[in-house]
Amino acid sequence: MSALRAAGASRPGMVQSLRAAVSRRSFHNVGAMRMAAAKSFHKDEPAAPILKTSVPGPKAAEAVKELDQVFETRSINMMADYTQSVGNYIADPDGNMLLDVYAQIASIPVGYNNPELRKVAQTPEMVDAIINRPALGNFPSHTWANILKTGILKVAPKGLDNVYTAMAGSDANEIAYKAAFMYKRQTERGGPDVDFTPQEIESAMNNQAPGSAQLSILSFKTSFHGRLFGCLSTTRSKPIHKLDIPAFDWPQATFPQLKYPLDQHAEENAKAEQASLDEVEHLIKTWHLPPAAVVIEPIQSEGGDNHASPAFFQKLRALTRKHNVLLIVDEVQTGVGATGKFWAHEHWNLQDPPDMVTFSKKAQTAGYYYRSKELRPNKPYRQFNTWMGDPSKALLFRGIIGEIERLDLVNHTAKVGNYLYGKLEGLASKYPEHFQNLRGKGQGTFIAFDHPKRDEFLVKAKTFGINIGGSGANAVRLRPMLTFQEHHADILIEALEKIVKAL
Amino acid sequence: MSALRAAGASRPGMVQSLRAAVSRRSFHNVGAMRMAAAKSFHKDEPAAPILKTSVPGPKAAEAVKELDQVFETRSINMMADYTQSVGNYIADPDGNMLLDVYAQIASIPVGYNNPELRKVAQTPEMVDAIINRPALGNFPSHTWANILKTGILKVAPKGLDNVYTAMAGSDANEIAYKAAFMYKRQTERGGPDVDFTPQEIESAMNNQAPGSAQLSILSFKTSFHGRLFGCLSTTRSKPIHKLDIPAFDWPQATFPQLKYPLDQHAEENAKAEQASLDEVEHLIKTWHLPPAAVVIEPIQSEGGDNHASPAFFQKLRALTRKHNVLLIVDEVQTGVGATGKFWAHEHWNLQDPPDMVTFSKKAQTAGYYYRSKELRPNKPYRQFNTWMGDPSKALLFRGIIGEIERLDLVNHTAKVGNYLYGKLEGLASKYPEHFQNLRGKGQGTFIAFDHPKRDEFLVKAKTFGINIGGSGANAVRLRPMLTFQEHHADILIEALEKIVKAL
Repeated sequence: MSALRAAGASRPGMVQSLRAAVSRRSFHNVGAMRMAAAKSFHKDEPAAPILKTSVPGPKAAEAVKELDQVFETRSINMMADYTQSVGNYIADPDGNMLLDVYAQIASIPVGYNNPELRKVAQTPEMVDAIINRPALGNFPSHTWANILKTGILKVAPKGLDNVYTAMAGSDANEIAYKAAFMYKRQTERGGPDVDFTPQEIESAMNNQAPGSAQLSILSFKTSFHGRLFGCLSTTRSKPIHKLDIPAFDWPQATFPQLKYPLDQHAEENAKAEQASLDEVEHLIKTWHLPPAAVVIEPIQSEGGDNHASPAFFQKLRALTRKHNVLLIVDEVQTGVGATGKFWAHEHWNLQDPPDMVTFSKKAQTAGYYYRSKELRPNKPYRQFNTWMGDPSKALLFRGIIGEIERLDLVNHTAKVGNYLYGKLEGLASKYPEHFQNLRGKGQGTFIAFDHPKRDEFLVKAKTFGINIGGSGANAVRLRPMLTFQEHHADILIEALEKIVKAL
Repeated sequence: MSALRAAGASRPGMVQSLRAAVSRRSFHNVGAMRMAAAKSFHKDEPAAPILKTSVPGPKAAEAVKELDQVFETRSINMMADYTQSVGNYIADPDGNMLLDVYAQIASIPVGYNNPELRKVAQTPEMVDAIINRPALGNFPSHTWANILKTGILKVAPKGLDNVYTAMAGSDANEIAYKAAFMYKRQTERGGPDVDFTPQEIESAMNNQAPGSAQLSILSFKTSFHGRLFGCLSTTRSKPIHKLDIPAFDWPQATFPQLKYPLDQHAEENAKAEQASLDEVEHLIKTWHLPPAAVVIEPIQSEGGDNHASPAFFQKLRALTRKHNVLLIVDEVQTGVGATGKFWAHEHWNLQDPPDMVTFSKKAQTAGYYYRSKELRPNKPYRQFNTWMGDPSKALLFRGIIGEIERLDLVNHTAKVGNYLYGKLEGLASKYPEHFQNLRGKGQGTFIAFDHPKRDEFLVKAKTFGINIGGSGANAVRLRPMLTFQEHHADILIEALEKIVKAL
């Protein structure tokens, strides 16, 4: 392997053939790979993962050491070389190329170095947006409405035709929470035309009631909604996220703890869901800081890939409606196609849409969609900050939407997900101890399973050319890109079997 | 004017000569302008503001109406056309070009459509950063250390050689606060090697003590540190920012309320500063949620351009050191050259640097510099989120730093600021009722004055071709770009006199 590596380093023209040679020498079926590569969405993808060194190799280790002088490195999973990454494959500085089914924590939608996005990044409009960044609330561009309508709003969830833009999932959730608090207080006050009292104005400046609302956001155990102070108070996934950070005394309900496969435990799962709903209603009625909104992920992602049924979400919508509590659906991780629908909450067939839906990650921009102007705060400058989002990222999302449409990637992902899930069911029946609680059937490639030695599993995966992530305490979560195809699934399945055999 | 407008709209080739014609017909000294334009940093800048319609004109009004269907518009100050904006001039869709001394709420550093930034935006490195956005904590690029060292860290404040990157000023402050809480609790716990107790781990998941820290951040009255839940609890500038949003019960000290000009009120100002310091010490000793950090702006910006002396800040540093409370300097608005130093806190000549300095706005990226690895949380994933910043913005900041160095813009701004301040002193002695409490002497172009009809003043300014902003209750704040020159100052001064005569 070292001779190959040396040759690869000194003769770049050899890289492609070396890739084939290396994978031939390693562990993949080259004939099948060649055929597969021919039909890939990404024509420059390697036919299979390429391992030239261990991961991290010497160059990666050197780069980590250099970075550690000035930047946090203890959470580094893999030092990457994005100039060499392509499609579903992430490269590193040592020339390794791993099939990436983690995709920057589920945030790369259409492949590394996507040629269509490269074009978008080079348009005059993008260059303009980068070098002339506006304060969108004060000085929007005359093209901003068009950018929104042809991009972010083109894919707006049904029933939600307005948007506030933001920078990332965390602040998207926080500004949605702020909207909920302002709406709730406005309702309590008697409507949008009723002014603040002098007492409210004075006490708000002292962080005290009545100006500072004595309200809460209700979230669910094992949920993840970000790590700023407000959203972190709703995040309940892991102690390491929350320890030592001051928090609001907000309520949490139990997320239904379902048994998988779902169709084999229908009755007890329905009971768990009803118990959760009862708890939500109890908390809404009794919590000392009444909830202005309930926030929920369609599939709890960071918290361990926890699912609930459409019936559960339908009832939750009805419950929040009944008690005049807003429903915020956090689609930061589930949104933009990975579940086989553009928005995961489309799986629920709600007649009464959520009040707000937050988004980020694969959208590369962020924000919240909302139901109507009624949910805009009653005065200007209440929902405001300097940048309020970023037109350059909105343009990027528009390009991503273009790729999704051009390649029909949502339907594609639904199909590939079914294919992958079927193969995983095969592995689970062959190795039940290694593929526990397989879940995500019918949810595109948004699939997970539990493994008793999860952290070892993730490390071992790299030795078979796979970059894969975890969630919750024991879950291996699959978060491939939307350009993940059946031949990638075959490579993944083959590698998964090797991983568990090696554990 | 309408004939000119029609001609300008139908014959783009005429625009430049029309600009001259319009300004000749309006109110500026064309001879001086021509000379001035010749020596401008931005060769394509108009010689003077151009007014073809009222602001907003018909096209701008139409664009606002369209945008209002889907996006917040009530806070719009001016609908802009960035494709036509250049240097210090902001254009609108009606062909108006205003001298912009507000600069996207102080966040445009080196002019609209800066040709050098345009080059940076078109580099392969930038395109790569846009289309392959990494999760920096998990999968940084092997080039990230170099990007940091040649950019963000090249201008690191003295004594602070580490950085956590972020997205905007608000989250930069919040993650600095998080670092302070983790550091304080770690110290209380007995050091970085002492583990969390089971009680801490369990209670943190319930948002309760001891896992959720019963600590605070001490800030100052009339301060502004952002509008997310944590930083908003430290923001004390205006009720509209805070009303109806839940807040932490954190302490606020009085910011010294100085009398201007500073040198004529030295004695009473020194007393006000000492009273403020005494209050800080009292709050540190007695507040029921002990402060983990004090956060302060070098000049309170949004809160009204409130200054304090270097002696005050030196004593504040000593005080925080004495009580083992961290000092966070919020340079989100003051940083990157506008005060005639790269960082405003350089004016203080601190021997013992701040523990953390936060930055954003003109940097276009964001984050906090910190003193040493000692301030990194003791475990990975404590200071973490998906993106942790954005390499594309770090590259942009590197380009901005390049422009600042090439044109020596910090020293330039110090000089132009002195020139401008001198002219304003002239206006203030001529119209004392219109230019009250002039302040910012020796602070570059970071200058403000109070006006009894401030809001009218800002509106009227547009009719004389000036885009200018306010701060606090009565202040007009000047926030020109770093490429603002003496000839721009002349235009501004001439316009300011016309504005106050028209009020």
